[in-house]
Amino acid sequence: MIAKMAVDVSTTVVVVGAGPSGLMLACNLARFGVDVRILDDRPDKTSTGKADGLQPKTIETFRQMRLADPLLRNAARVYDISFWQSTAEIPLRRTGRQTHYPDNLVGASDPYILLAHQGMVEEVLIDDMESRGVFVTRSSRFVSCSRESGTGKLNITYEDMSSKTIKTIRADYLVGCDGARSKVREFIPDAQLEGETTNASWGVLDGVLDTNFPDLWSKVAVRSHVAGSILWIPRERNMTRLYVQLSETDGERVERSKATAEYVMQRARDAMYPFHLEWKTIEWFGNYVVGQRAAKHFMDSDLQIFIAGDAGHCHSALAAQGANTSMHDSFNLAWKLNLVIRGLAAPSLLATYEEERQKIAYDLINFDAEHCKAFSKDDSALTKNFDDNIRFISGVGAEYSEGMLTRNRHTILRPLQSGALQIPGRVTRYIDANPVDIQLDIPLLGQFRIYFFVPDVPKGLGFLSVICEGFGNASAMGTLSSRARQSYAKKPPTAVPSDEFLQPLRYTSASRAFTYAMVTQSCRSEFEIIDLPKALQDSRWTLYLDNVDTPRCTDKWFGTLQREQVGIVIVRPDGYVGAIDTWGLTEGKVAGKRIEDYFAFMM
Amino acid sequence: MIAKMAVDVSTTVVVVGAGPSGLMLACNLARFGVDVRILDDRPDKTSTGKADGLQPKTIETFRQMRLADPLLRNAARVYDISFWQSTAEIPLRRTGRQTHYPDNLVGASDPYILLAHQGMVEEVLIDDMESRGVFVTRSSRFVSCSRESGTGKLNITYEDMSSKTIKTIRADYLVGCDGARSKVREFIPDAQLEGETTNASWGVLDGVLDTNFPDLWSKVAVRSHVAGSILWIPRERNMTRLYVQLSETDGERVERSKATAEYVMQRARDAMYPFHLEWKTIEWFGNYVVGQRAAKHFMDSDLQIFIAGDAGHCHSALAAQGANTSMHDSFNLAWKLNLVIRGLAAPSLLATYEEERQKIAYDLINFDAEHCKAFSKDDSALTKNFDDNIRFISGVGAEYSEGMLTRNRHTILRPLQSGALQIPGRVTRYIDANPVDIQLDIPLLGQFRIYFFVPDVPKGLGFLSVICEGFGNASAMGTLSSRARQSYAKKPPTAVPSDEFLQPLRYTSASRAFTYAMVTQSCRSEFEIIDLPKALQDSRWTLYLDNVDTPRCTDKWFGTLQREQVGIVIVRPDGYVGAIDTWGLTEGKVAGKRIEDYFAFMM
Repeated sequence: MIAKMAVDVSTTVVVVGAGPSGLMLACNLARFGVDVRILDDRPDKTSTGKADGLQPKTIETFRQMRLADPLLRNAARVYDISFWQSTAEIPLRRTGRQTHYPDNLVGASDPYILLAHQGMVEEVLIDDMESRGVFVTRSSRFVSCSRESGTGKLNITYEDMSSKTIKTIRADYLVGCDGARSKVREFIPDAQLEGETTNASWGVLDGVLDTNFPDLWSKVAVRSHVAGSILWIPRERNMTRLYVQLSETDGERVERSKATAEYVMQRARDAMYPFHLEWKTIEWFGNYVVGQRAAKHFMDSDLQIFIAGDAGHCHSALAAQGANTSMHDSFNLAWKLNLVIRGLAAPSLLATYEEERQKIAYDLINFDAEHCKAFSKDDSALTKNFDDNIRFISGVGAEYSEGMLTRNRHTILRPLQSGALQIPGRVTRYIDANPVDIQLDIPLLGQFRIYFFVPDVPKGLGFLSVICEGFGNASAMGTLSSRARQSYAKKPPTAVPSDEFLQPLRYTSASRAFTYAMVTQSCRSEFEIIDLPKALQDSRWTLYLDNVDTPRCTDKWFGTLQREQVGIVIVRPDGYVGAIDTWGLTEGKVAGKRIEDYFAFMM
Repeated sequence: MIAKMAVDVSTTVVVVGAGPSGLMLACNLARFGVDVRILDDRPDKTSTGKADGLQPKTIETFRQMRLADPLLRNAARVYDISFWQSTAEIPLRRTGRQTHYPDNLVGASDPYILLAHQGMVEEVLIDDMESRGVFVTRSSRFVSCSRESGTGKLNITYEDMSSKTIKTIRADYLVGCDGARSKVREFIPDAQLEGETTNASWGVLDGVLDTNFPDLWSKVAVRSHVAGSILWIPRERNMTRLYVQLSETDGERVERSKATAEYVMQRARDAMYPFHLEWKTIEWFGNYVVGQRAAKHFMDSDLQIFIAGDAGHCHSALAAQGANTSMHDSFNLAWKLNLVIRGLAAPSLLATYEEERQKIAYDLINFDAEHCKAFSKDDSALTKNFDDNIRFISGVGAEYSEGMLTRNRHTILRPLQSGALQIPGRVTRYIDANPVDIQLDIPLLGQFRIYFFVPDVPKGLGFLSVICEGFGNASAMGTLSSRARQSYAKKPPTAVPSDEFLQPLRYTSASRAFTYAMVTQSCRSEFEIIDLPKALQDSRWTLYLDNVDTPRCTDKWFGTLQREQVGIVIVRPDGYVGAIDTWGLTEGKVAGKRIEDYFAFMM
């Protein structure tokens, strides 16, 4: 018997689903110091199978969160892809082999797919979250959500499956990271999935192989004339994942009951002939039907209920996009929720979540439909599809349209554009001469980063002091910083032992809302920290010398920047570029005004 | 009351002292599958102070052991050194600033000092050791060692300080890693420390500073005309270590009772004037008197009792050499003990321990005496001392003389020489296209590595098949491999969960005594693994393409190697080069014989 209960607990955000998307969200909220509860209907975390590949951009995200180490240590890395084909005339042979993420097309700092089963990724996020006092409430199935009249609070009910009781949480926000069959989605009006479901079906097998196939440790696309297509993915712990195509068109749909592991293995053996293919162990078997669908809405009009991850988009697993896109959905949402919850930004900021992530979802399903077609067609179609989409597949090329947070996109032709991710670059920290990656160095503390590219510091000092005056206490920016300081003083993130090593205060001593940074081509001997305006003196850990990379970071971001110019880049808390501009040395005042304008949504 | 007991336990190796040297030894022995007990008289591990800097070579060693991650994540990194000086005429000012480990002089892959207190380093080794079932026996003070007549076994007694009982362990080997006042050393005839003790004394302070001194995050050598010299070392957790010179000559020796923290702090303030210098917190304070001494013997003539680390050499702390050299002592000893204990090498192998490490100890104390003098003298003396010794300081330049394990040193002028460490180089693994560091890629499993540099694989196939025939079952090398296989089958290392990810079998499938590897400039499309001789097919994880580094790894190691040549490098289990030779393509037989000759001590 299930008994209905009164409100059991109050929190700020309820996350439903502790897969990659839900954990990425809850973990980031915990880091920002937001109260969060995360529910999952499973009794334990994922132990085998499911998603298995982190794309270059996602690896970068884990590095930025300082959580990449265990994955980098234990996962397999795919740097190349090879193509094999058999026809009625020619037996199975390698028709090509190429770098998966060529530097000239992608430019990722980790140009590979990192292969590890979903549970390893979840564990990293869970461990971090738990160190901050947030634990997954397991065996808890989301049931319903209603809005209290008056307060506007949400009453969220779930079934505690162990005690078979219904419990209620009162919260301000609800986020459904509960997969393709999302139950939370039903509580967002007009949010149904739209798109095609084909009948193309695939079987997936994880296991240790016994084979004489030579390309076992590359990603391999096989097209056989007798038994469809196969995708090989090398895995951690000596495993290989095989995606085995069971049918590709409507008429041929394979009965789910027929698509057993044994059937899939035999089909793979047939396709791989004359190579020998057996399984020493099988860790996981699954099968799925391909479709490309996206939810019509990612949130309700009150900006309180959201969906992220598979709840918002589904597609094939061939290009290893699902878990990656899902985590970036919630990575996008987390910092926005933090700012709104703290009263540091207007609730309308949350509307950019749907604008930005639904755009990516459409990009994804469009790409995926083409990718699946190309996969079945021929090498040249697949190669072309790869070349056209490789930046997107890597995650590095997922870009947002012009909007409130991404200003003046493409008004000037520059390598770096608003709406895009920072281009990786290596610079030297002034203060301790450590070479660092500019895109990784400043920890993600929920703050915006404002980079001043000042080719010549002695020349640029006038500009810098004018602009830094505009960050003072009396200014609009100063008011923002002071409100942020108060908010984080009142509701600080839980201190964790790793903070002692990370020293987050190094990045927030000038402001809790912004980290100021400077990148210069001046030599270290040309200026002392004490020569700089106070806001930059207080930012001494984020002064960089542009003297290690080729081309220089300045050139990578701006193309060219004259010594009589200053470049300003606003980077959002999620690493996306919000605005990029160049100014003459006398334009400090108007440049400061432009920065203020950008942050109007916070004022 | 202390009661004498009969033999309580038997083991193979007893290590006395769980500092860096003892832990490095016990950890490696545990990894090789050797029974080991490690005793320490302290009740717990080091929590503050003591040694604090890992040099580039030591960082490499931890990387090779796959243990570097926690240190790299949490420690501070020193890339530069700055020099400050005051005279009667000129107030304190910066007189120079330079890269600490310039690439052209050192060429380390981690060209910095990694600063973390000794306890963090110990913890990494302890965690790994404990995962392999070896725990430090704490509060246990070594008392004595005697040899059983007949068996030749050692009876080692220690005081269990908790129960105040004397316990006895029977073992084959005893290693004293018990510091400068080593008690084990007393059981090695004629092993007393020899050398000078000056009266120069220094105070050492770890804490968080409040200062306006701008170079706080560099290593800084300060020479003041009023209050002696100071060495600044940036540390993890926002700390700084100051070494403060209290006196430099005999006559001026400061009374230990006078050398309080307060006295040291005041002296530092005086020296740093006009900069402001206060301590927000003090974590550790110590002081020491400088001397340069080395033990006359590092082992007894029965090759059963050894000393390592400070027990064998003491010197100043200025160049951060102590813990580093100590760990390399035991890193050198560990694999030799493993081979002898397994009966895979003659006991005389152990004699090379003293030959090699005592040479380094002398190099160290000679350098240190000069370094201390230069430190007190002037900038140009110190700069010259640095330039002359920087490879040695980094650990990269610690080299062994010609000997049984280091053949034909300097007979031919090549960048890489026997007795030296591998030169770091980046190559691509053939099998999975992963770029890897050649000096890190093959895990340390106690095996020798034999690298074939074959510029042109199709041309070199004849040579390779001749030489690989010599590794077959019937050959001398094959016999060695087969004895190794039996030994490790009988007494395997404890399996640990990380093995599942590391897959040690990938590196020992051809032989448990040797990992064969190949480095080639041929393209991946020019040959398939199946084209290679069986020993190399079985070594498929250690076939490398020399296509990423500039200059190429081949050129870094050999200078030049013609396409009609094959280069062979034998790398010892500790990463030192044992032999390096080049051969014509028709000389496979004699090259094979040369390899056999090298391994005579194992036959």
